Amino acid sequence: MYPDPISVTRITSIGAGPIGGGWAAHFLARGYDVTAYLHDTSETEAFHSILNTAWGSLTDLGLAEGASLDRLRIVTDLEQALEGAQFVQESAPERLEIKQSLYAQMGEVLPPDVVIGSSTSGLTMSEIQAKCATPERCVIGHPFNPPYLLPLVEIVGGDKTAPDAVVWAGKFYEIAGKAPLLMKKEIPGFVATRLQEALWREALHMVANGEATPEDIDIALMNGPAPRMVSQGQCMAFHVACGAGGMATNLDQFGPALKLPWTRLEAPELTRELRDRMVDGCNDIAGDRHFEDMAAQRDREIVAVLRALREARLG
Amino acid sequence: MYPDPISVTRITSIGAGPIGGGWAAHFLARGYDVTAYLHDTSETEAFHSILNTAWGSLTDLGLAEGASLDRLRIVTDLEQALEGAQFVQESAPERLEIKQSLYAQMGEVLPPDVVIGSSTSGLTMSEIQAKCATPERCVIGHPFNPPYLLPLVEIVGGDKTAPDAVVWAGKFYEIAGKAPLLMKKEIPGFVATRLQEALWREALHMVANGEATPEDIDIALMNGPAPRMVSQGQCMAFHVACGAGGMATNLDQFGPALKLPWTRLEAPELTRELRDRMVDGCNDIAGDRHFEDMAAQRDREIVAVLRALREARLG
Repeated sequence: MYPDPISVTRITSIGAGPIGGGWAAHFLARGYDVTAYLHDTSETEAFHSILNTAWGSLTDLGLAEGASLDRLRIVTDLEQALEGAQFVQESAPERLEIKQSLYAQMGEVLPPDVVIGSSTSGLTMSEIQAKCATPERCVIGHPFNPPYLLPLVEIVGGDKTAPDAVVWAGKFYEIAGKAPLLMKKEIPGFVATRLQEALWREALHMVANGEATPEDIDIALMNGPAPRMVSQGQCMAFHVACGAGGMATNLDQFGPALKLPWTRLEAPELTRELRDRMVDGCNDIAGDRHFEDMAAQRDREIVAVLRALREARLG
Repeated sequence: MYPDPISVTRITSIGAGPIGGGWAAHFLARGYDVTAYLHDTSETEAFHSILNTAWGSLTDLGLAEGASLDRLRIVTDLEQALEGAQFVQESAPERLEIKQSLYAQMGEVLPPDVVIGSSTSGLTMSEIQAKCATPERCVIGHPFNPPYLLPLVEIVGGDKTAPDAVVWAGKFYEIAGKAPLLMKKEIPGFVATRLQEALWREALHMVANGEATPEDIDIALMNGPAPRMVSQGQCMAFHVACGAGGMATNLDQFGPALKLPWTRLEAPELTRELRDRMVDGCNDIAGDRHFEDMAAQRDREIVAVLRALREARLG
C-alpha cells in the first residue's frame, strides 16, 4: 500500500521553528529534496539562521552524496508546499486546533499513501488526526532536541493510524539516518521524555530541598551517568556491570534496593513477570556477545567520547 | 591542618573488587605510588585482571608523566598497607560491620591528618565512622562505575567529619584528575545515583506496563538524552534550549507541564523560591556566555561525540 521508503526523495517539512528548521536541515544533509512550508515570509530569515547553524554541524558529521542546501525550496502556500511530497514532517506549533486544522487540510490534498510524521511532544496522534479524512497514514515521529543532531525518533500511531504506516515510518526514518523507536503504546511523554522527566523532577526535588544546586545536578550527570549512557542504555549498563549473571543478578541480588529511598519515585513491584521481561530483554540485546567483550566495547566507547569531548573543549 | 593536597604522592587503595581495582588503576595512571591492600593473596589474580583491563583504557586516555604499573605494591597486611599513605581510598565490601571495624583499625594506625575517602554507595559516613577514634578525616568519595573512566566523585562527610576534610578531599580529587562534587547534605544515593535511580524506576514501570521493552529504553537513552547530556547537564540543556529567556522561560512558560503525567514521579511544588534557585543557578553556570555560543559549543561537542562513537563502533 505504501511505496518502498527507499524510493522517497522529496520531503515536505512544515514549520519554521527550531524543530521544523532542524528537520529540514537533517533531510537536506541526507540528500533529500526538501520543501519547507513557512506560515509567513516574515519567518524566512529566522528559518535560514536555524538552517545554517544546523548545516555547519551536519557538514562536520558528514553529508550524504549530493546533499546540498540548494535542494531546499521555501514555500508559504500549503497546497503548493505539499505538491509532489513523498513524506511530510510536521512541526507546526503545539496547539491542538492548529494541528487539527492542518491535518484536515493535508488529509484532503495529499495522496493517502503519503505518510505524515508529527514532531509533537505534548499531543497524541489520536487527538491530532481527529479531523483528518485520511488519518490512517498519520503517525507521530518525535525527535529529540536538537533534531539535526540527536538520532532518536519515537514513532507511534493514534487510534485511527494503520499499523502499516507505523512500520513504514520506522523503516523510512532509519533509511533517513535516524534511530527509530517503534512505541508499544500511545503514552504521554513517549519513552525518552518520560525517562528524562523522572530524572528532571528528582533534580527539582533535590534543589527544592537544598540537597543540590543546579550546578551539582549538571556536574553529576555530565561526569557520571552520561558518558556511559551514550555507549550503553541503563538496562545494558546494569546487565554488563553484573558480569556473567547479568540483569538476573542485578534484580535478584539488588532488587531490595528498589525499596530504598534513593529517589522519590517508588519502584513498581518486582514481580516474576517484570523480572523475566527485564532479564529476557537484556539477554536478547546481548545476543551471543560475552559480557567481557561488551564491557571492553563500553570502555573503548567511553574513552573515545572522553577524548572527543576534551578536544572539542580545547578547540 | 591537612597537608597541601598537591604534596600527596603515595596512596593506599583498599579492596580487590572492580571499584578498588579501578581506583588503584586510576591513581597509578595519574602518576601516584599506589599500595593496594587485598584481604587475601587469593584475590591477587582477579585484581591484576581488573587492573590490566583498566590500564588499557587509561593508556588510551593518556597517562601522567612517570605513571607506571611498576609503582604498584600489593600488600595483605593492613598496617603495612597503610604505612606512609598520604591518602586512603577505601573500597571494602558494602557491609557496615566490615567498614566499621576497618575504620576503627585505620583510625588507630593512620596519622589524623591523612584523609580517608570511602567508595561506599549504600552506607552513610555517619554510620561508617561510628567506631573510628579519629573520624574527623573520614569522608565519602563515591565514584561512578567504571571508576577508572568516569570522572565523577561525590564527596560528603558524616556527623563527625571536619568540614576541612571535605574541602581537602574536593581539592585532592580534582588534582588527581577527577570531577569532584561537594554535596550539600548526606542523602541516600548521593546526587548522581538518585537521578539515575529515578530514571531507572520509571523504566521499570514502563516495562511492567508493557509500554516499552528494555531495548526500547536503551535505544531511547543512547540516541536521545545521552549524547547531549555529556555536553550539558539537564539544567543547562533546558536553559540553553530556551534561548535568551533561559531557565526562567522554561519554568515560567512550561512550569505547568510539571503537572502532566510525563513520568510517575510527582514534581515538587514550583514555588517562587525553587524557581529562583533554578534560574539563579543556571545564570551562575552560564556566567557571561551568550546562549547562542553555548548552543554552538553544545553542537560541536555532540558532533565530536557522535563521530567518536561511530569510529569506536566501526573498530
